[in-house]
Amino acid sequence: MEAIEREEARRQAGLGRDGHGDAVRPGPPGLLNKFRGRLDRDAIIRETVAAVRAAKAGGARTVGVNAEDGSRTDEGFLTEFALAAKEAGADRVRYCDTIGGETPERIRERFAKLASAVAMPVETHCHNDLGMAVANSVSGALGDLDAGQDAWINTCVNGIGERSGNADLLSTILGFRHGFGLEERAEFGDPIDLAWARWFAPWAGYAFGRPLPYNQVGVGRNAFAHESGIHADGALKDHGNYELYDEATLGAFPRDWHARPGRVVLTGEYGGKAGFRHVMDGLGVEPADEDLAFQLVQLCNAQTGRPLTDDELRLIAAHPRELALLFPGQIT
Amino acid sequence: MEAIEREEARRQAGLGRDGHGDAVRPGPPGLLNKFRGRLDRDAIIRETVAAVRAAKAGGARTVGVNAEDGSRTDEGFLTEFALAAKEAGADRVRYCDTIGGETPERIRERFAKLASAVAMPVETHCHNDLGMAVANSVSGALGDLDAGQDAWINTCVNGIGERSGNADLLSTILGFRHGFGLEERAEFGDPIDLAWARWFAPWAGYAFGRPLPYNQVGVGRNAFAHESGIHADGALKDHGNYELYDEATLGAFPRDWHARPGRVVLTGEYGGKAGFRHVMDGLGVEPADEDLAFQLVQLCNAQTGRPLTDDELRLIAAHPRELALLFPGQIT
Repeated sequence: MEAIEREEARRQAGLGRDGHGDAVRPGPPGLLNKFRGRLDRDAIIRETVAAVRAAKAGGARTVGVNAEDGSRTDEGFLTEFALAAKEAGADRVRYCDTIGGETPERIRERFAKLASAVAMPVETHCHNDLGMAVANSVSGALGDLDAGQDAWINTCVNGIGERSGNADLLSTILGFRHGFGLEERAEFGDPIDLAWARWFAPWAGYAFGRPLPYNQVGVGRNAFAHESGIHADGALKDHGNYELYDEATLGAFPRDWHARPGRVVLTGEYGGKAGFRHVMDGLGVEPADEDLAFQLVQLCNAQTGRPLTDDELRLIAAHPRELALLFPGQIT
Repeated sequence: MEAIEREEARRQAGLGRDGHGDAVRPGPPGLLNKFRGRLDRDAIIRETVAAVRAAKAGGARTVGVNAEDGSRTDEGFLTEFALAAKEAGADRVRYCDTIGGETPERIRERFAKLASAVAMPVETHCHNDLGMAVANSVSGALGDLDAGQDAWINTCVNGIGERSGNADLLSTILGFRHGFGLEERAEFGDPIDLAWARWFAPWAGYAFGRPLPYNQVGVGRNAFAHESGIHADGALKDHGNYELYDEATLGAFPRDWHARPGRVVLTGEYGGKAGFRHVMDGLGVEPADEDLAFQLVQLCNAQTGRPLTDDELRLIAAHPRELALLFPGQIT
C-alpha cells in the first residue's frame, strides 16, 4: 500500500525512476497575465509547497523548484518563493531566464544574492535570444559559487531549444575548462569525457533533424578552420597561436556506413536479408539473433525515417531481445 | 608633391578612402613564437609608433592600433603599447581576444583598467570559440563606459568569422537594446535601423555561401518559433510572455524572385533578353539602359555563380553605367 501511494505521489510529482525529480512547476510569474492570471503569488507558493511535499513523500531524493521568468521577477518574491520551497524540502531552485534577456553581470549578482539568502543552490536555465546563453549560464553558476553553494546548469546538446535555443552543453563545459580566469574556478561533479563530443553532437543533430551550424562551437565544420593569412600562417606553426585548446580532445567525427560517398548498400525498412548481412558484415558485427535484429532494423528505420547510424545498428545487433520490448506485438 | 607623399603614406598605412584607418598591425604578441619571434616588445612599439605617425602624416582622421592577442598579454605591456601609440597620434586601441578564451567579467575589468590608464577607447574584437563572443563584446564595451570612454565594438554580420565566428552584429545591438540592465546604459553613435535585419542577414549568408543557422539570433528560421506546450500557449496569448521584443522590429524576410516555388524563369549568365525582360517586368523595374543592364546581369551572375537577388537586379537596372565601371573592357 505504501509502495502504491509512493508510486502515485511519484507520478503526480513527475519524478524520474531514480527519484531525482525534475523541477516542480509552476514558479513565480513575472507577468500578471501568465497562467491566465489564475494564480496569484500566494497560490503559487501554496501549490509549490504542496508539490514539493508530495515529491518528498513519494521518495524523491532531491527536488528542484522552477521559477519561470525568474529573471523578470523581483528579488523579494524570488527569495520568499525559494525559502518556502526549501522549508517544504526542496534542494534547489531553478531561475529561468525565460525570454533570454539576462546579462552576465546581472545574473551573477542575482544568483549570488538569492543563493546566499536561501542557502540553497540556484540552477541556471538560460535561453539564447541575445546570443548570451552560455555566458549567462557560466556567470550565474559563478554567482552560486560566490555564495558558497554548488552550481547546477541547464544545457542542451548543440544548444537546441525554443527559439534561438538554450545554453549549449559543450560550450558551457569548455567555458569552465578553458575560459580565462575560470580554469580553476569550478570542479565538475561528474567526470566528463569530451572525447565523445564530436560523435554525440552530429548524432543529436541528425536524430533531431537539426543540422549542426557550420560554426557550432567545437564541433561545427568550421570550428577549427583557419583561413585569414595571418591566422593560417600562425596556426600552421603552432596551433596554440590560434586555438584555445587541442581539438583532438573532442574526439573524432563519425564515419557512418550510410554516409559513405559513392555506391552504398543500406539496410532498413524496405531492405532484405542480403543488404542487412552486407552492412553487418561491413561493420564487423555478428548479431546475437539475426532474425530478430533484422526485424528491429526494419522497425527502427520505419520510426526514424532516416538511415540508421552505425551505433544504432551495433546496439540492435548486441541487444535485440531488450530492444524488442519497445515493439510489443510487432515482432513475428 | 605633398599630395603624392600623402597618397604613399596612405597606401603604406592601408587607409580607407575616407581617411579612417583600419587598425594598424602588428600589436603586442602574447606568445613568444608569434611573428616567428622576429619582433620583440621594443620592436613592436617602434613599428607601431612609426605606422601611426605615417598614417597621421597621410591624412588619417582617426587611427586605431591593433593588439593581437590582447587577452593573452599582460596588462603592463598592453598599457605601454597603447600609451606609445596614443602619443604617436592613435585614437583607440583594439584588444583582440584572438583565440576566443575571454570571459565577461575579466574583459570588462581589463577594458576599464586599460581605458582608464591610457584615457583612450579600447575596441573589442571577440572570437566565439567558447560561445561567448557577444557577451564579451558587450562586457568589454561596458568596461570602456566604466572608464568614461566611448566604446568601439567589432562585429560581423551573422557572426561570420574564423573558426566559430566573431561577435554577431545583430545580437550585439539587441543586447544593448534589450539586455536586462543595459537598456539605458549606452547610446549608439549612429542611428541603427533594424528593419533591415531580416533582409541583410539572409542576403549576407547567401552571398558568402554560409546559410543562416536555424537558431540564429533574431533572424534564424526558429528565432521566434514556440513549440513546447507552455511556451506556445503563453505566446499565443501575449507575445511578451515568451519574447523579449517585438519581432516586427526586425523587418520582413526577403521574397526574392529566384526563390519562388514552382516554375520560375530567371535571368543570368546563360539567359537571353526574353527572360531578362520577363524578370524585370515581374519586379516592376524599368532598366535605365536595357542593353547595358542585360550585359551586367550576365557578368554579375557569372561572378557570383548563383541567381541574382531582387536588390541586385534593381541596383543594376537603376545604375548600369556606374556598375559598368567594374567591368572594364568586358562591355560591348
